[in-house]
Amino acid sequence: MLKTNDDTRIDVTALMNEMGRSAHAAARPLATASEAVKNAALHAMADALEANERQILAANAIDVANGAENGLSAALMDRLALTPERIGAMAQGVRAIAALKDPVGDVIAAWERPNGLKIERVRTPLGVIGVIFESRPNVTADAGALCLKAGNAVILRGGSDSANSSAAIHACLIEGLRAAGLPETAIQLVPITDRAAVGAMLRGLSGTINVIVPRGGKSLVARVQEEARVPVFAHLEGLCHLYVDASADPDMAREIAVNAKMRRTGICGATETLLVDRAAADTHLVPILTALSEAGCEIRADSAVRSYYPTAAPASDDDWTTEYLDAIISAKLVDGIQGAIDHIETHSSHHTEAIVAEDPLAVERFFNEIDSAILLHNASTQFADGGEFGMGAEIGIATGKMHARGPVGVEQLTSFKYRVRGSGQLRP
Amino acid sequence: MLKTNDDTRIDVTALMNEMGRSAHAAARPLATASEAVKNAALHAMADALEANERQILAANAIDVANGAENGLSAALMDRLALTPERIGAMAQGVRAIAALKDPVGDVIAAWERPNGLKIERVRTPLGVIGVIFESRPNVTADAGALCLKAGNAVILRGGSDSANSSAAIHACLIEGLRAAGLPETAIQLVPITDRAAVGAMLRGLSGTINVIVPRGGKSLVARVQEEARVPVFAHLEGLCHLYVDASADPDMAREIAVNAKMRRTGICGATETLLVDRAAADTHLVPILTALSEAGCEIRADSAVRSYYPTAAPASDDDWTTEYLDAIISAKLVDGIQGAIDHIETHSSHHTEAIVAEDPLAVERFFNEIDSAILLHNASTQFADGGEFGMGAEIGIATGKMHARGPVGVEQLTSFKYRVRGSGQLRP
Repeated sequence: MLKTNDDTRIDVTALMNEMGRSAHAAARPLATASEAVKNAALHAMADALEANERQILAANAIDVANGAENGLSAALMDRLALTPERIGAMAQGVRAIAALKDPVGDVIAAWERPNGLKIERVRTPLGVIGVIFESRPNVTADAGALCLKAGNAVILRGGSDSANSSAAIHACLIEGLRAAGLPETAIQLVPITDRAAVGAMLRGLSGTINVIVPRGGKSLVARVQEEARVPVFAHLEGLCHLYVDASADPDMAREIAVNAKMRRTGICGATETLLVDRAAADTHLVPILTALSEAGCEIRADSAVRSYYPTAAPASDDDWTTEYLDAIISAKLVDGIQGAIDHIETHSSHHTEAIVAEDPLAVERFFNEIDSAILLHNASTQFADGGEFGMGAEIGIATGKMHARGPVGVEQLTSFKYRVRGSGQLRP
Repeated sequence: MLKTNDDTRIDVTALMNEMGRSAHAAARPLATASEAVKNAALHAMADALEANERQILAANAIDVANGAENGLSAALMDRLALTPERIGAMAQGVRAIAALKDPVGDVIAAWERPNGLKIERVRTPLGVIGVIFESRPNVTADAGALCLKAGNAVILRGGSDSANSSAAIHACLIEGLRAAGLPETAIQLVPITDRAAVGAMLRGLSGTINVIVPRGGKSLVARVQEEARVPVFAHLEGLCHLYVDASADPDMAREIAVNAKMRRTGICGATETLLVDRAAADTHLVPILTALSEAGCEIRADSAVRSYYPTAAPASDDDWTTEYLDAIISAKLVDGIQGAIDHIETHSSHHTEAIVAEDPLAVERFFNEIDSAILLHNASTQFADGGEFGMGAEIGIATGKMHARGPVGVEQLTSFKYRVRGSGQLRP
């Protein structure tokens, strides 16, 4: 179905630059496309995904067979495999994006100057977005649909493991664009698996890419940080903390801890470190650790915690900076809210942190003094998700502080411009 | 007053990384400093600038003498030279920044989810800002004060031409920080002129710099684009266009054209290209060009314009992409609003464009279809300025689309975080 990376006769740079030029050209009509036209395209895409279920499953079967042959891990195989249910969910996801409010043209702010100039700040598309992802084929549909809704052209570069599945899904997206009369180059999928294509995207395809969204593990993130010459929605680790204050309701603390760690251990909003107020060691600590252990969680603890809960393994220094993405938690006693803030500001990846407390002063200090994208009070860190925030869908969670922070939904995929209305004003 | 770049014994990397660490450490108390404390520091800085006028002028005299010896251009010498009036204006500028609303802690948005989670998006400081500027010593005070107001630590790297002046001004800023009990490392000035210091900042000082603000000419911008490994508030050229529609009031068009081009030719909001509707060639074109010429402007025109105004010099292809920053304008006839949009979208640097027109449809198309940071109707492009927008002060104008676009004031020097208040919610 696809040319593979063995075809060395392809001039990768020329091919990629041509994709950049096509995307840039498509960005202009997309930026002014009406909400109705964009939604028509999205609904046609969803319909095409359902109508082409058989073709998508056949393409996916090739990827799954290749993956088994290449010895992909069980977790990767699970991400890769599609089913009729998963394809249906993908189509529903695209329809949900169609149902979101169109951000383009929104007046974010408006004011008038003493000289009569009327100024307004209006949302615009970003332009061309480059999405680099790994083995999840459904990202093809999610990212393509989200970028389109925000009026952006997108260049998708999926992992080689899911190349056939992504191509089959991409064909459905093209069908939707065509049905709505939008340029087919609005959503392009890089047709080669040569890693040089990623490098070309990170260099910006001769100024045509406005932002790169990397969705992948540490090696991709490291490469992006090293090579990117264009802005990036950085997603570093989700080294999330849960702090249990002495003022916390013990039952709530226990239930939140188990949900925050164990609901799904592989997502970036999963808690990795539990901090318990030293003043709560006698009351809250052991019930929480017992519940976590009963739920199948391994506990690695400092010596103070182990004096209360001796079956925990001893934590090493590395445990305070490790994103396990697994049924393991590090646990530590800290000196109240100040100790929690100090530990988090020192070790956190500034993604998501939660506090369980009834003391409003502790909560206010936690909210004010910790500089992470998402801070939660009396709720599970697993709520760190665009859908849970009501954004409808997200292309990822940004841990950087520029432009977007936290869930990146359609609104975060826009920029803005100023429109100024005058009546002949000259600047003195 | 300063060590110069001849001291090769200085370990630039170690020195710069230590500055980064100090700035990062200062950023935490700054982020939670109250508005009153920050304003007290700013007022003390302004007072110190006035009280130390004699010392600042003495330091500036050294820079001016060196500049004359090094053969600096008249324009650069003018930017460099300080007077009692300019120092007074600098102090007033700092007081004006104190009078701005503190953006930190502002709730930008708030909503509640069906499960009862209350979400709010709150402004936070960005962290550590690196400002790289050239010969204007007043940027030391402006940039230092703006960054402080937004709760950020800043590392300032000025040009070697103004090193003594910047150091004398910086000493006044430190006095203000000290008076308010804020860490002195909140505003640091790089004490060496070695260009390797710029490279170190562009690499982010081991992860301590959150964003770089370059304020300088093309060679600095090119270096920043090539070397930066951290986010940058890009300021490319201000290749601004003025389009005169056939529906324009001829007098208004003439007056706006002269103001937009000639009020100050050296600023980024100065118009560089005049586009006139072919349907207005008989009515609007010649009066505008005559007025520009009488104001001392050189005109470089396409052949269509020259058939109406033969004294214009012929324009070359380069003229459509040249930011003159001088009393020169390129002029072209275009086919109505569509022709104007096509020319601007092809040639503009997407900084600022203006339309003079009475036809509302032409204005709406101009506002919708042109993707520049600032679009003006019936007003001069020279209004492209943070002060004129009511932002109080700006650290520059961003031509990129990420995070900030257009004037960069205190609000644009912030990020945000989410605060989520729950009552024990678990994610299903």
